[in-house]
Amino acid sequence: MSIDESIKTYGAKIDRLLEELIPPDKKDYLSEPIWHHMNTGGKRVRPALCLITCEALGGDPKDAIPFALAIEVMHNMFLMHDDIEDGDTVRRDQPTVWVKYGIANAINAGDYLLACAYKSILTSSIALEKKIKLLEVFTLTYARTVEGQAMDIGARAAEDFSVDKYMRMVELKTGYYLACGMVGGAVISGVSENVVDKIWMLGKTMGPAFQIRDDLIDLTHGKGRGGVIGSDVKEGKASFLYSYALEVASAEDKRSLSNIMVKLRDETTDNDIQFVLDIYKKYNAIQYAQNYAEQLVQQAYKTIDEIPIENKTIFKEIASFMAQRLS
Amino acid sequence: MSIDESIKTYGAKIDRLLEELIPPDKKDYLSEPIWHHMNTGGKRVRPALCLITCEALGGDPKDAIPFALAIEVMHNMFLMHDDIEDGDTVRRDQPTVWVKYGIANAINAGDYLLACAYKSILTSSIALEKKIKLLEVFTLTYARTVEGQAMDIGARAAEDFSVDKYMRMVELKTGYYLACGMVGGAVISGVSENVVDKIWMLGKTMGPAFQIRDDLIDLTHGKGRGGVIGSDVKEGKASFLYSYALEVASAEDKRSLSNIMVKLRDETTDNDIQFVLDIYKKYNAIQYAQNYAEQLVQQAYKTIDEIPIENKTIFKEIASFMAQRLS
Repeated sequence: MSIDESIKTYGAKIDRLLEELIPPDKKDYLSEPIWHHMNTGGKRVRPALCLITCEALGGDPKDAIPFALAIEVMHNMFLMHDDIEDGDTVRRDQPTVWVKYGIANAINAGDYLLACAYKSILTSSIALEKKIKLLEVFTLTYARTVEGQAMDIGARAAEDFSVDKYMRMVELKTGYYLACGMVGGAVISGVSENVVDKIWMLGKTMGPAFQIRDDLIDLTHGKGRGGVIGSDVKEGKASFLYSYALEVASAEDKRSLSNIMVKLRDETTDNDIQFVLDIYKKYNAIQYAQNYAEQLVQQAYKTIDEIPIENKTIFKEIASFMAQRLS
Repeated sequence: MSIDESIKTYGAKIDRLLEELIPPDKKDYLSEPIWHHMNTGGKRVRPALCLITCEALGGDPKDAIPFALAIEVMHNMFLMHDDIEDGDTVRRDQPTVWVKYGIANAINAGDYLLACAYKSILTSSIALEKKIKLLEVFTLTYARTVEGQAMDIGARAAEDFSVDKYMRMVELKTGYYLACGMVGGAVISGVSENVVDKIWMLGKTMGPAFQIRDDLIDLTHGKGRGGVIGSDVKEGKASFLYSYALEVASAEDKRSLSNIMVKLRDETTDNDIQFVLDIYKKYNAIQYAQNYAEQLVQQAYKTIDEIPIENKTIFKEIASFMAQRLS
């Protein structure tokens, strides 16, 4: 089975099991907003990678299911809170939870998802020591992702943002999170700490690589929001391109750039977006970003070479899959 | 040492240790909003009760410190998120976190507190089995409190609200939460499941008793917000008095009551509050609430009698303390 097929198969399994963890029909003011959100879709890539990693390393993927579910649930908790924090009103053509159910319910339903995630790990039948280890991996990931989000919120339109700060931010915000499922799968399979450490490193390299490509897509193809170019500019999002431009642009260009980034979403015009694009082109930011991401991908392959196990095919397939896309 | 003194002594200890768990000086966009909130005060009653219970049952209170900290941190996470959800702009004479740092940072800083709480339990040096048990107690409490908050949000100005629904709501929203510290202290001391079960019951009785008294205070003395009477009416909060009035009032009085409860805070006039007070008086709601709370307190003493241990003095002192006030 190809990695794409494995992700599809395991993803479908996760979808069914999510309904057991969070029953969709309870009249409790929680299930409805949660399932409104869950039904907007998602390919359940992170939990699938958890099961695939566990299996590839000789573990029983069944043992990894509760942890895989926990990651997917945490992922959706972050999406629900981030939508409020970013003021996003639409997700995959549906109104976001805070738009449909109000900010109070959206915060609270997100809080509830985290409880469900911890419950999933705590009620699993895995040995106590592994369970504690998984809770540590999960809590570390949760904390680091929130730290990254804090940097992201603080960095909006900040004039002292830099490539270093960007890299630290995305390592926190997307790196741990991407590695978490694979790390959990590895812990459950019972491999050594050395293997686990390398998988953490893999995530911390692949996460930023993916995020830089995501930043690029926003300016080249648009991000699944009706293919509109420049959503990140409208949001004032601290992208790789913005961080690079702030390092290399002239004082005047920097000022113009910052002025556009601080504008509210509705006030950002098409001309503004074109202006930002022109600045990025002027300083070769897009080419620089592409090269930077490519180097990270190469670094990821190097990390895979260093994983102290025999058959590394699965990790190469995962890296190749992630380098291309991630939902 | 009296229970008041114990709480004061242990509360001060908790205050010092909180600064180790969440260092106040980090420039990470998280510590500042968190400590702005933490410095608004609080008597750290819940963690103090955790340590007191552990000691009274023969355990070493030192072992209970990480769990006690976790409860206090979760408590503050709820306050931070609730302030956004309820639209509260002031807490103990200070602007609330969302007012001072924006909604995005307030949601995210609350999320971070929960990570700190789990970390505190996970890094404690207690035996694995007890650690898992504590994580279960903590996660159950967290989930139930969020469920109670969901009911609370959904019940604002609902016309079909009833005393039964109120009781279920406050059992979830304040009962688990009040019991959690004592339950954790008991688990750490190593007492039997029977003792633990009775302490859960104690919380589920005392929580609502306390909440009903809190509802009454709002209409008699005002709630520490400059002694203003009727904050709950302005907020449209689903209080015991409101739930009782909806059961017994005439159709016309119910309609008038609901109409005032759905008004936005700024639109609720002093006349409206007086009108609600008059309706509560007309149906003897205040007297009924006082009797109801008193019965719950008696029930709590009965539960204490059933705790299968010799010396129950400490629980009687705690119940008596909580029946009087709680911060």
